[in-house]
Amino acid sequence: MKRKRHFRPDWTETAPAPGTVRSVVKYGAPNAYKHPSDGWVAMMMQEFGMDEGDFSRKIEEGNIEVVLDRPVELKDEHIRQISAVVGEENVSSDAYSRVRYSCGKTTEELMELRKGIIREVADIVVHPRGKHDVARIVEYCDREKIPVYVYAAGSSVNFGVRPAKGGITLVLSTHMNRLLEINELNQTARVQPGMFGPAYEEALNNAPEHSGTARRYTCGHFPQSFEYSTVGGWVVTLGSGQASTYYGDACDLVISQEYVTPAGTFRTLDYPATATGPKVNDIMKGAEGTFGILVEVTMKVYRYLPGNRKYFSFMFPTWTAAVDASREIMQGEFGLPAVYRISDPEETDRGLKLYGIPSFVDRHLIRKGFVPMERCLCLGTVEGDAGYTALVKKRIKKVCRDYGAMYLTGYASKKWEKTRYTEPYMREDLQDVGIQIDTLETGVTWDNLHKVHQCVREYIKSRPATMCMTHASHFYPQGTNLYFIFLMRTSDVDEFREFQRGIIDEIACHKGSLSHHHGVGRMMAPLMDEHLGKEQMEVLRALKRHFDPNNIMNPGGQLGLDLSEDQKKRVRT
Amino acid sequence: MKRKRHFRPDWTETAPAPGTVRSVVKYGAPNAYKHPSDGWVAMMMQEFGMDEGDFSRKIEEGNIEVVLDRPVELKDEHIRQISAVVGEENVSSDAYSRVRYSCGKTTEELMELRKGIIREVADIVVHPRGKHDVARIVEYCDREKIPVYVYAAGSSVNFGVRPAKGGITLVLSTHMNRLLEINELNQTARVQPGMFGPAYEEALNNAPEHSGTARRYTCGHFPQSFEYSTVGGWVVTLGSGQASTYYGDACDLVISQEYVTPAGTFRTLDYPATATGPKVNDIMKGAEGTFGILVEVTMKVYRYLPGNRKYFSFMFPTWTAAVDASREIMQGEFGLPAVYRISDPEETDRGLKLYGIPSFVDRHLIRKGFVPMERCLCLGTVEGDAGYTALVKKRIKKVCRDYGAMYLTGYASKKWEKTRYTEPYMREDLQDVGIQIDTLETGVTWDNLHKVHQCVREYIKSRPATMCMTHASHFYPQGTNLYFIFLMRTSDVDEFREFQRGIIDEIACHKGSLSHHHGVGRMMAPLMDEHLGKEQMEVLRALKRHFDPNNIMNPGGQLGLDLSEDQKKRVRT
Repeated sequence: MKRKRHFRPDWTETAPAPGTVRSVVKYGAPNAYKHPSDGWVAMMMQEFGMDEGDFSRKIEEGNIEVVLDRPVELKDEHIRQISAVVGEENVSSDAYSRVRYSCGKTTEELMELRKGIIREVADIVVHPRGKHDVARIVEYCDREKIPVYVYAAGSSVNFGVRPAKGGITLVLSTHMNRLLEINELNQTARVQPGMFGPAYEEALNNAPEHSGTARRYTCGHFPQSFEYSTVGGWVVTLGSGQASTYYGDACDLVISQEYVTPAGTFRTLDYPATATGPKVNDIMKGAEGTFGILVEVTMKVYRYLPGNRKYFSFMFPTWTAAVDASREIMQGEFGLPAVYRISDPEETDRGLKLYGIPSFVDRHLIRKGFVPMERCLCLGTVEGDAGYTALVKKRIKKVCRDYGAMYLTGYASKKWEKTRYTEPYMREDLQDVGIQIDTLETGVTWDNLHKVHQCVREYIKSRPATMCMTHASHFYPQGTNLYFIFLMRTSDVDEFREFQRGIIDEIACHKGSLSHHHGVGRMMAPLMDEHLGKEQMEVLRALKRHFDPNNIMNPGGQLGLDLSEDQKKRVRT
Repeated sequence: MKRKRHFRPDWTETAPAPGTVRSVVKYGAPNAYKHPSDGWVAMMMQEFGMDEGDFSRKIEEGNIEVVLDRPVELKDEHIRQISAVVGEENVSSDAYSRVRYSCGKTTEELMELRKGIIREVADIVVHPRGKHDVARIVEYCDREKIPVYVYAAGSSVNFGVRPAKGGITLVLSTHMNRLLEINELNQTARVQPGMFGPAYEEALNNAPEHSGTARRYTCGHFPQSFEYSTVGGWVVTLGSGQASTYYGDACDLVISQEYVTPAGTFRTLDYPATATGPKVNDIMKGAEGTFGILVEVTMKVYRYLPGNRKYFSFMFPTWTAAVDASREIMQGEFGLPAVYRISDPEETDRGLKLYGIPSFVDRHLIRKGFVPMERCLCLGTVEGDAGYTALVKKRIKKVCRDYGAMYLTGYASKKWEKTRYTEPYMREDLQDVGIQIDTLETGVTWDNLHKVHQCVREYIKSRPATMCMTHASHFYPQGTNLYFIFLMRTSDVDEFREFQRGIIDEIACHKGSLSHHHGVGRMMAPLMDEHLGKEQMEVLRALKRHFDPNNIMNPGGQLGLDLSEDQKKRVRT
């Protein structure tokens, strides 16, 4: 037993070789890995009935060169014209670029890539130098009816960057990645869409040094993909950061936007509020590249006050108690926490094991009535003015205790915070041994939370040897999200896809939102008509026809705007 | 002098006679009046060079019967069909109804009505009994191309309810005025659009008695027109309440909506947040009846905690200090006040005089450096949990003191709160003696506030004998609104209109929003293309074409959607 507990698979440590499928598949920095802990390995051995041999045989690692047998279909004249706009050095049509910038990080994509299966790719990859390049390209492509796709950080998990109709992919993160201006009076930042989260946050945190501001600022938006996501991506996909309960979702942070569309270029006006008809600034959010291309965005920023941050964590006796306390906190009118998360019993217990809770602590918890597969962990932070963070933490403690929770200090939250962006790295190791870890998520009102949680969980658990860990991590007075993490051992893409589709169907049929913050992409697209209803989808299609009459902007399924009835029925990819 | 100070004009006290123009013109309850105080009268005598005689000669009181020489143009068959839907008792075509339900409360409208000038009126007035009536009527009118207008409380100040193309006006406040459901888990209320503010708030405050809820709730939305505004009106015109700094604007309170449009009936989904493409729930807000008719709305509600409310007021040495302190408060991350208002020097000094500041207090203020025509009054409240209101008030006091303000207790705020809905009543008395009081308002970012304030003020003050009082009353971290109140002695509608247009032009050319919370209506309509720009107006027109291809929904200028180039140039009305 002892030997087994300390068994450490020979995880890959090296950066993928340039030009390989693996280098397309791998999340994040080429050299960065996060291996499953001993606890993880032990858990997987037990759950999936795997032995050391299973963890030693690497499968489908993708250490093969990217090979593409599809010619560039775009006419030479088009390539010449586009090269004339951006410069030849900013256009590529080699196989590797075409594949790399056509892929996101959806589990099925990665499974298929590892098997050498390559789906639709762009004909050429273009790196515009600025918004004027984008405007000229869109104008040209509209005239010539060439499909235009956008790629920024490539962490999409719903086939949002897949160039379903070929054409060109614009990479916005290569050149269009700068902070243009901090307006300290208005507390706003004007940003190019391809700026990565860490660069943006660093520029704001160090604004006095970089930009000569009086104060330091924070963007307030920290999705799990923070390190491999861009400001523009946050806005066009309606993302949420881990501190959204206080700072708001990406859509709440946007003051104004500039778009290039086939119907023209425009910039919405900078107002804190206005009553001049339906707000075009809102209409554009979440269009996922189907109306046009976001080329600049003015975002709210916030004072950066890390010294005031308070951490907390609690153990609740049950999921019901955790949910009820959370609702009381969100409706309590005493201010809101920044990060706030509750884990369901399976996530809580797996978490406790994985992160090595000392057994004497566990025994103490059990003695106090916090028993395995009932107890639920809550963790979070409060940000803002010092008096505010002290008050909100105090009131949260009071509410949690009223609902039977035990205060566990801020230790777990601090630990979580340190590693919060690294979880996605584990996927490489797991896929190397034939294990898939994936997530699906939904927005729910309080009165529907338990039903969605229960039904989706039941569905996932109906598959033998499948783990399901669920948390709620973005809170509002009217409800929250549910984030389902599932793990299964399979290398069969069809089986995985069918199972995943079943989970989505469970979410949809129990009236959860099709997505709380991952967006629609092409994954949820076939379900959009049924989800929103014909009348609402026709509103989106009317906007699409207005902005993009030739359907060149991210065509081929995105948002479900241009799917045939037949395509809606087919299994998506 | 003494006699003059106590001169009291013989203000009208009686309710307008039924069927008269005055009964159309008068604001609010027929029997309710609020007369200008002695201070007001003295101020107007001085400013406008008026004597007691001027205040004794009533002019254009509108005590004349409504006479309409325009036949109903709608075919008898149409009237029969519509009557068959709602019942004959819910259809009227008498002159008085046609005029009454075609008028709002724009100053020009009232001036013209008093002169016997009647602009466009509906052919018939219809009181639908519920959303199914509305759906059948819209379907019929779309087929027969009959214009459809909506009237609820009639307090529009931008010709928003004027039936510019005749047809029918639907009165939503007659029958569609109920609270349908309180969802206590979600903290939402499902409401019919024609429910008046006070009835809605009363139902929420007394929800335990009326609806069996565990808690009491508040709607959080209290515009000055609260008593004569409806929940639906708040949403479709993008209104703001006086406590919006804490609770948000009307658009922020909407969870879901049900609309009847020529393109179909639909209900947006109830989620606290969702990432499923551009949000139709947002797209519909502010459409001012041009896309369809809001027939039900689910609003956020808040815990009703009046016992925790804190009041404050301050005197700042200057407008700049008041603005700077306000910005610091809104960006301070310690929570937000509910009501928060700062008055510019002219409003402050007139206010002090009008509300009778004792002279020893005034002398004390001046001694302390708070001198007339420089000092600025700030007042407000904090709402929420007791600890929260204590903290926020404490921090506001600290910031205000840092900016040189003197704390004046909560007295002024309490006094303001008691009479906050009664100001519009004064207009009857003033118009009776030939004085016009009107308001225009705009949204501004912090970095543009002073310029807009200064230029608009200069313009207004360039007219001899014209008062201009300005405040900011809806705050955000990124800026606020400016609310200009102007008083002038004139009965000449053309002169008034030209002057008002000049103010709007000043706001627009200095980049203030065309409206922060009064909406667009037909007043701002001719300026919309220039304000939003052609590209954004075309987005609204694309939506209009989708929802209402036959242009039957509030046609004839609303939002500037269907104005000819010629009409855009003409003086509006």
